[in-house]
Amino acid sequence: MTQLFEKMTIVGVGLIGGSMARKAREEGLVKEIVGFGRTKKNLDSAVSLGVIDSYESVLLDAVQGSDLVVIATPVEKSIDIISTLLSKLDSQTIITDVGSVKAKVVDVFKESVNANAEFIGGHPIAGTESSGVEASYASLFENHVTILTPIEKNSKIAIERLKNFWIGLGSRVELLDPEKHDRILSDISHLPHVVAYALVNAVLEGNGISYAAGGFKDFTRIASSNPEMWSEICIQNKEAILDSIKTFRDNLNSISDLIENSDENSLYEMFRSAKNGRDSWLNAKEEK
Amino acid sequence: MTQLFEKMTIVGVGLIGGSMARKAREEGLVKEIVGFGRTKKNLDSAVSLGVIDSYESVLLDAVQGSDLVVIATPVEKSIDIISTLLSKLDSQTIITDVGSVKAKVVDVFKESVNANAEFIGGHPIAGTESSGVEASYASLFENHVTILTPIEKNSKIAIERLKNFWIGLGSRVELLDPEKHDRILSDISHLPHVVAYALVNAVLEGNGISYAAGGFKDFTRIASSNPEMWSEICIQNKEAILDSIKTFRDNLNSISDLIENSDENSLYEMFRSAKNGRDSWLNAKEEK
Repeated sequence: MTQLFEKMTIVGVGLIGGSMARKAREEGLVKEIVGFGRTKKNLDSAVSLGVIDSYESVLLDAVQGSDLVVIATPVEKSIDIISTLLSKLDSQTIITDVGSVKAKVVDVFKESVNANAEFIGGHPIAGTESSGVEASYASLFENHVTILTPIEKNSKIAIERLKNFWIGLGSRVELLDPEKHDRILSDISHLPHVVAYALVNAVLEGNGISYAAGGFKDFTRIASSNPEMWSEICIQNKEAILDSIKTFRDNLNSISDLIENSDENSLYEMFRSAKNGRDSWLNAKEEK
Repeated sequence: MTQLFEKMTIVGVGLIGGSMARKAREEGLVKEIVGFGRTKKNLDSAVSLGVIDSYESVLLDAVQGSDLVVIATPVEKSIDIISTLLSKLDSQTIITDVGSVKAKVVDVFKESVNANAEFIGGHPIAGTESSGVEASYASLFENHVTILTPIEKNSKIAIERLKNFWIGLGSRVELLDPEKHDRILSDISHLPHVVAYALVNAVLEGNGISYAAGGFKDFTRIASSNPEMWSEICIQNKEAILDSIKTFRDNLNSISDLIENSDENSLYEMFRSAKNGRDSWLNAKEEK
């Protein structure tokens, strides 16, 4: 593939940032990759794994001359970094992120009056419950969707460049309004995490966990995700998540009432529509 | 392995019954396998797949001369069949089942005054979301636990024979009181199914399902399970499941309150204990 950027800076070289760097190098999408992060040890191992070319210990040195800056840090931290960088970088530079919550982050750019660089929110819907640069791999984004959340203020050319970059990393790209993104992600990702954490805690209150098998293992896999990241996401996407929890709770209460009333037929209908909905989703997904 | 039974009858030749038959034959645990079921087509394919030797269209003909009768039908149906067979079979015959709910089924034997044969409740904690004899395979029970729920009325020799049979099928065997079994299974299996069905229905109310990825797929796999079987299980194990749902709902409400109050630290603690609990369980499981 053609080179799309001269120099890419990855702020936060973990699972996502590291996988982006690996694939970008493999495909020749960027010429140089510089890292920045909290811990020297992690950055050293990113260099020795060949994920980044070098790293800097001062943020402004790390982004110096970059035409693509990827912020792959927790959401709150991203907000700080983006508001610092917007005025410091020149108008040819694209800043993007990879976080699960978009509206709050995009607002920094929307409301900024002295921005030179452009910010476009990004979110690759891919990941594992592992974290850290050691867990990163180049094919992470293949067959996955990356959502970009540009706003009116963004130039068409910057949107196009970032879109091509993500296609080069192997993912399908879709554009969404930031608020719509947050509500959708709340349903398909944030709610399942909350539910999985609650379920594991409920089961731990009993004595049965040692008997649990494969179904339980799959069902609760996401409860082994990073608790720091997820507690932050829940606060940052509060309104949407509370809304998703409410819809879920209503559905659970309906099931619970039907069980209480021994209404097997209506229970069957509820379970059947869930099964049919999931099976149709899976078929549509597998056809892609 | 040595032969343990002369003739085994499988009532309901589906995923579980079919897998038991395949493995029993492979290991030489039984000499002859006869099937019984609702649909001729399924029984014909069980014969042509070599899962059973033959089948009968009348239940009493199918169990004639069997020293092991496995009831692998839905719970309500099992109750009918067991109460019919207990007085009709002789004292050398063991009747067992494979259902997810035990107390109600065991009660039939406990309360029976004219039983000749013995009934011992059984539950292999194994399965997939698929069903039918075509989905059955001999190694289904390997590395899985089968719980037997004998009561005082059972002879030691019958318990020992059935235990050795399940060990021969490749599973670890544990003995549990029927009520304790039902409460544990409610937590580790019935509750997760209810929650998965509720979650899929909640997500289907929104517009986001087409964006869902691998985490959602794993999390909701069990929502593609047989809705008929699961609505029946919920009614049959009503008290325990309502109790599990209550504990789960309390945990979900705590999380929801913490999100509402933006209490990130306490949220982190709740998520962390869930993660630690699951990780410890998984480590202990993998060491086995």
